[in-house]
Amino acid sequence: MTRVIVDVMLKPEILDPQGNAILGALPRLGFEGISVVRQGKHFELEVDAPVDEAAMRQLADTLLANTVIEYFTVRVVE
Amino acid sequence: MTRVIVDVMLKPEILDPQGNAILGALPRLGFEGISVVRQGKHFELEVDAPVDEAAMRQLADTLLANTVIEYFTVRVVE
Repeated sequence: MTRVIVDVMLKPEILDPQGNAILGALPRLGFEGISVVRQGKHFELEVDAPVDEAAMRQLADTLLANTVIEYFTVRVVE
Repeated sequence: MTRVIVDVMLKPEILDPQGNAILGALPRLGFEGISVVRQGKHFELEVDAPVDEAAMRQLADTLLANTVIEYFTVRVVE
């Protein structure tokens, strides 16, 4: 069993209201020095070895991310 | 500027309907050999250096995760 991590984030040019809401709350809660917060999705998959990385990228592309507004990274971790 | 990554996942004993929905869709889309899918949240923060890791953990604990049902990991990446 191999663990595959897929992180999906909004593209930099797309507004991120959730991230901005968190950023706005930070000073009220006493956290200083943070200039950007972006929120995305994190997927952990358990996959039979050996992992076909091309298939994992296709899976992320078709099922996990909307590549019009999001980009993704795929990591095989163990 | 340092990038801090916080990943928030449901605890293993908490049901994950979003992850299960993705898992159910995989065979229909032709992806085989995947036994578990869990969905969580991924935060990227840009923080003034030097980063106070204890403060980052407190931030994740109070603002980003609900530690009754979720756990989180904090990584300082650059």
